[in-house]
Amino acid sequence: MVADTGDADTDDRRDGRSHVLTLPADRPLRLACGVSLGPVTIAYQTYGALNAEKSNAILVCHALTGDQYLTGINPVTGREGWWPLMVGPGLTLDTDRYFIICANVLGGCMGTTGPRDTDPASGRPYGLSFPVITIRDMVMAQKLVIDALGIAQLFCVIGGSMGGMQVLQWAADFPERVHTAVPIATAAKHSAQNIAFHEVGRQAIMADPDWRQGDYYSAHTRPRAGLSVARMTAHITYLSEAALQAKFGRKLQDRQALSFGFDADFQVESYLRYQGSSFVERFDANAYLYITRAMDYFDLPAAYDGVLANAFRGTETRFCIISFTSDWLYPTSENRAIVRALNAVAANVSFVEVESDKGHDAFLLDEPEMFKTLNGFLDAAARKRGLARP
Amino acid sequence: MVADTGDADTDDRRDGRSHVLTLPADRPLRLACGVSLGPVTIAYQTYGALNAEKSNAILVCHALTGDQYLTGINPVTGREGWWPLMVGPGLTLDTDRYFIICANVLGGCMGTTGPRDTDPASGRPYGLSFPVITIRDMVMAQKLVIDALGIAQLFCVIGGSMGGMQVLQWAADFPERVHTAVPIATAAKHSAQNIAFHEVGRQAIMADPDWRQGDYYSAHTRPRAGLSVARMTAHITYLSEAALQAKFGRKLQDRQALSFGFDADFQVESYLRYQGSSFVERFDANAYLYITRAMDYFDLPAAYDGVLANAFRGTETRFCIISFTSDWLYPTSENRAIVRALNAVAANVSFVEVESDKGHDAFLLDEPEMFKTLNGFLDAAARKRGLARP
Repeated sequence: MVADTGDADTDDRRDGRSHVLTLPADRPLRLACGVSLGPVTIAYQTYGALNAEKSNAILVCHALTGDQYLTGINPVTGREGWWPLMVGPGLTLDTDRYFIICANVLGGCMGTTGPRDTDPASGRPYGLSFPVITIRDMVMAQKLVIDALGIAQLFCVIGGSMGGMQVLQWAADFPERVHTAVPIATAAKHSAQNIAFHEVGRQAIMADPDWRQGDYYSAHTRPRAGLSVARMTAHITYLSEAALQAKFGRKLQDRQALSFGFDADFQVESYLRYQGSSFVERFDANAYLYITRAMDYFDLPAAYDGVLANAFRGTETRFCIISFTSDWLYPTSENRAIVRALNAVAANVSFVEVESDKGHDAFLLDEPEMFKTLNGFLDAAARKRGLARP
Repeated sequence: MVADTGDADTDDRRDGRSHVLTLPADRPLRLACGVSLGPVTIAYQTYGALNAEKSNAILVCHALTGDQYLTGINPVTGREGWWPLMVGPGLTLDTDRYFIICANVLGGCMGTTGPRDTDPASGRPYGLSFPVITIRDMVMAQKLVIDALGIAQLFCVIGGSMGGMQVLQWAADFPERVHTAVPIATAAKHSAQNIAFHEVGRQAIMADPDWRQGDYYSAHTRPRAGLSVARMTAHITYLSEAALQAKFGRKLQDRQALSFGFDADFQVESYLRYQGSSFVERFDANAYLYITRAMDYFDLPAAYDGVLANAFRGTETRFCIISFTSDWLYPTSENRAIVRALNAVAANVSFVEVESDKGHDAFLLDEPEMFKTLNGFLDAAARKRGLARP
């Protein structure tokens, strides 16, 4: 089952930061759009140890603005990884029990090949000449890592939001490689409203003169203002109305009265501006364009004559699906559609809608019911697989 | 009850387009921010005829991007007015029965004084030196028109969204001038989420180099890209997820397959881009900044020790409040808070939540239940007031 990765080299380390797997130019990655992309570098992190049977590996798939740094300090941003509550000794993704792998997605900007890398054809950064990639392309890149590590079957593939899309794609394309699958707060196809919000973000970036048709690298500029607006818009959608109301309401920022001006009078304005400006420091604007596009293009049923259930026919993967009551970006209805499709093919599926007022971002936060659900699901599956609790 | 409007001149017509009332510089409008603004021009339209008793007047308050042109062709845009289903002979706001008045709001860009008008202090367009205005300032400007027309009591003040905020302000400040009040799809104070979306729009405008710190008029430029992004973001919030899904879903625009590029592959993208670019042609970017700010600043309970009910204590105005099930910008809960406040002071209030999948924009659209509700409410009140059906 393990593909030949040929000349791929998995032991190199770039900047001492991440493991990297490199595909040379003469062994390119065939993308959904028809382009052969090469060379390709895939940067990934691992946590814990792979057991002798190679049966304890968990692949974590990150979301739109995530990366391979799950826990501990992200060496690029200097900030804590994005899933410290989930990954670590004794936590749900227990690094004393499992071997955790997380790769930066194709098209990303944390070490995996993306639009700011050098196009061998021109010797200059790809920019907009980078091919449009899909969720499936991301999965194919991850699979090269899993193959290179000699892992025949992942104990689990897990991820929230865009990470959940990758989980679904893995389960559909490589059911024999996925023992359990945990798509969280996601959808089997991107909705019109979500495409709309992404399009607004892309237009904000492209409207920034510093974007320069995507060719800003050589000019040593970045479309800061545009990317910041894109992030601000998206950030609103990650929270719930109730969370914003509870956290900020109409509270004023460092002042006793309205200023009758356009400063950030309200805390929510100040918070959003900070979210925008700090994001610009860590993310490449073109990568944002490409990854949002991949999400918009995601339509798993379309590849199966419009019938999602057909994607999972005959699957032996065990699924655990989780949604959050206040998530209006990937509402429970979208997650339930996945459950219905799995039920229609008699798949082994568990589904929990977690009561939360934290909105879409709940999957990143301290949600005891989510952890409890996952602990039970993973522990039972692990015991059945002979993975002893440490 | 009718204030002396002094030198105000109501019979002038500017460009043959709208009635205008002009306050000379020596009789300025005192604004909530403390600034005295003058001269001030208020542009308004009327439909139907004022009866001899001046008892059949209805003031319509428009929303953020609305104007005084309710029905028929808007002479500035060449397009149909914004409420043709509501206003006209035999319609709910029956121009054979009522005298309908609608004024462009203070800070607007359709004839009423706003940031693109000339600042007498500098002889140049105000730009950002225009004072920040409030919903109450808008109402005070409208009141000058009503006074000048010699109308002691309006039969009705009606409006949706920001128009509804003005209705509430009218009812709170001048209860004796408002016989019936119809706030539709609105809130007594702007929520954190709504402030957040407005802030994104403002940041998009201000990020556009063509905005030039608000001083773009003399450069004969306009922050087209920024205003377009602001409009696109806002437009998503005016619709419901269900409406977007039903109208567009994942349908492609003029193509059979995905382009693997950043063109508007999806109809929803094409639609949004059109909404953005067409808006730029008819709206001033600075006016958008000022009017969104007025909405953010709206907090009626704050002026009454935090108790909304106190705004309506002793009122004899008859209220009809309407919300829409799929409106997530001004959800039913916000409208119900108004109903509760009115109930707490034993006001005469009717409330209907209209079942609709059209989102916030439902108040502009063909919603039979809304018309039926309003027809019944207005007709009964009109008969009681001796306004015969034509």
